[in-house]
Amino acid sequence: MIKPMAIALVHHPVLDRRGDVVTSAVTNLDIHDLARLAKTYNLARFYLVTPAVEQQQLVARIVHHWREGAGASYNPDRCQALDCLHVTTTFDEALRDWRALAGPEAVALLTGARHREGLDFPVARGMAAQHPLLLVFGTGHGLAPAIYTPDHPCLAPVRAGHYNHLSVRTAAAIILDRLIGDSSTLS
Amino acid sequence: MIKPMAIALVHHPVLDRRGDVVTSAVTNLDIHDLARLAKTYNLARFYLVTPAVEQQQLVARIVHHWREGAGASYNPDRCQALDCLHVTTTFDEALRDWRALAGPEAVALLTGARHREGLDFPVARGMAAQHPLLLVFGTGHGLAPAIYTPDHPCLAPVRAGHYNHLSVRTAAAIILDRLIGDSSTLS
Repeated sequence: MIKPMAIALVHHPVLDRRGDVVTSAVTNLDIHDLARLAKTYNLARFYLVTPAVEQQQLVARIVHHWREGAGASYNPDRCQALDCLHVTTTFDEALRDWRALAGPEAVALLTGARHREGLDFPVARGMAAQHPLLLVFGTGHGLAPAIYTPDHPCLAPVRAGHYNHLSVRTAAAIILDRLIGDSSTLS
Repeated sequence: MIKPMAIALVHHPVLDRRGDVVTSAVTNLDIHDLARLAKTYNLARFYLVTPAVEQQQLVARIVHHWREGAGASYNPDRCQALDCLHVTTTFDEALRDWRALAGPEAVALLTGARHREGLDFPVARGMAAQHPLLLVFGTGHGLAPAIYTPDHPCLAPVRAGHYNHLSVRTAAAIILDRLIGDSSTLS
């Protein structure tokens, strides 16, 4: 059963290591790791957010390779995983699309290793039971401050108080597993 | 507090997509993702297992860059994460080293998406409380059958009965989080 949950991987606006707002480059590996993760947890959508037209074209080429090109027969599992991928230009566009698909009660739940005052995971699980969630992940050194508005709740870091420099791939995996769990506990 | 737990990322013997036993290539990204994950969960060791001498040399060059070269000042977080990395030629050598470090009661716990008869996670958590675990992950299309001997227990897949083609990076993240959890529940 498809879960009423989605993820967004944001490439702008994000911070670089100096704290400047930049557009990060799309990486082939993020696309595959997060698409396979989304498919494994039966998510409805994986939004890849970038305003850079040439980056959008790169994603389209990669997706074409795995869906219809040589990759489709080489590795059908990857082809299947990419079904849920949608490219949008902005985070707002992704959220609009998600609300159009999942209903007006859909909520964006931001993530970020630096936001210690965020919602605890049990609270977020309760929210996920009430609202179709769009989990929002930043690339680079994290989502830019402009994204963290009072409109959108934010999740607590995965490991508050510890060394907490996970890659976005591994952080997304842990967060999805904490919210959805394994097959024996949730449909 | 350092946890009495370690991970091993095995590049031989593993399967390729046709089911042949091969030595997979070390990737820079696996090194960083798993080192940061190991550091985040306070693991004692991250064993990178490859018999290929030129691959071992590649790892040494990468580690030198981040520990002592330009990377050490560029990104100190990555430098710190690599402290727990040890390269070994074989899985047996990694297990011997782990037992020498953690004690003779140390146990290797294998992982694999195809092993549906494996230990459930609550059982594995109990095992982790009794034995210093070495969690063993395969690259490529998974650990070769030769590794799965009756000597070593095996963990159940992350998502039994679902599409279950996670990358080794995201699978390792989920498994460590299920065994260790967040800072509010375990030391």
